[in-house]
Amino acid sequence: MNELPLSKEQIMDAAEQVLRRFGPDKTSVMDVARALQVSHGTLYRHFPSKASLREAVTERWLARSIAEPLAEIADGTDGSFAARLRLWLEKLIGSKRSYASDDPEMFAMYTDVTADAAEIIDSHVDALIGQIESILEGGIRSGEFKTAPPSETARAIFLATSRFHHPAHSPEWTAERADADFDSVWRLLLSGISA
Amino acid sequence: MNELPLSKEQIMDAAEQVLRRFGPDKTSVMDVARALQVSHGTLYRHFPSKASLREAVTERWLARSIAEPLAEIADGTDGSFAARLRLWLEKLIGSKRSYASDDPEMFAMYTDVTADAAEIIDSHVDALIGQIESILEGGIRSGEFKTAPPSETARAIFLATSRFHHPAHSPEWTAERADADFDSVWRLLLSGISA
Repeated sequence: MNELPLSKEQIMDAAEQVLRRFGPDKTSVMDVARALQVSHGTLYRHFPSKASLREAVTERWLARSIAEPLAEIADGTDGSFAARLRLWLEKLIGSKRSYASDDPEMFAMYTDVTADAAEIIDSHVDALIGQIESILEGGIRSGEFKTAPPSETARAIFLATSRFHHPAHSPEWTAERADADFDSVWRLLLSGISA
Repeated sequence: MNELPLSKEQIMDAAEQVLRRFGPDKTSVMDVARALQVSHGTLYRHFPSKASLREAVTERWLARSIAEPLAEIADGTDGSFAARLRLWLEKLIGSKRSYASDDPEMFAMYTDVTADAAEIIDSHVDALIGQIESILEGGIRSGEFKTAPPSETARAIFLATSRFHHPAHSPEWTAERADADFDSVWRLLLSGISA
């Protein structure tokens, strides 16, 4: 075959479309090759296994759909740091909820990749915790928050809100009291970090 | 058939044994009837479905294995209320971890029943939150804790520690940093409730 070189982005775009159409369980690397009209060999050079393809697509989806919009909030300058932290958590939780209901194929793949404890999930979580940490640092500088080690507190805040954003809990997100529950946890955490 | 009346406890004992032997997915109400050498009809009067049998066995197991030992800690009188709350949470987390590794059949059944959002799980969780509440009330009376509404704070503490005791997270409990993570969350929560 005489093929034009394919960029990784083009492959990922096609893979994402194919995964949405067939669902993550039924999509093979060969389905993606077929959609791109390239040989298996071409694709296997980029993605040597179905797992590597799923992880790459999930990684890009997490960065674009979750981490980047959250970074805008973390880097913002409006209002108090407490308000910014709450907004950040609400955005994280709201995004997860809406993807769970409106983009079920990508969410199912993300759930599977999370359950497989893929390294890309650790990196994603570390990036999010880094964003919380930068909000905490701002609030410590301004005197709003206690001077506890911000990296540890940031991780604790992420873990303590798992119920509301970890995909294993998605069946619980539609519960009537989900918002009230987050509000209770938020108030407890805010009380724990406030100076 | 001419059968002696069977107590619900005898049925549950047999059901638990059969469930452990065959695993929760492969156990039917008929398997339990066979083990007890009674007719299906006798058993179906007590447990009209496989779901009702699983829920009843899970409910008893949760009460005996989790809630009762925890109640002893909540009702204790030694040490500070903060120390008691930490001990209570460590016992909850430790029990869940050890059942996940040492009693995998019962733990798998409990995980399934939890995922099905069975009412018995809500009752069990409410009972545990009530125990946290009673520790908080003691600490508020003694001046150790802030005078926030203890029922709401108790629920927030339970939810904020889900990562460490909700069965959906059991694959993460063996992670190297699991204890350090609990410790971080604990310090944040303690900071949030301390007067």
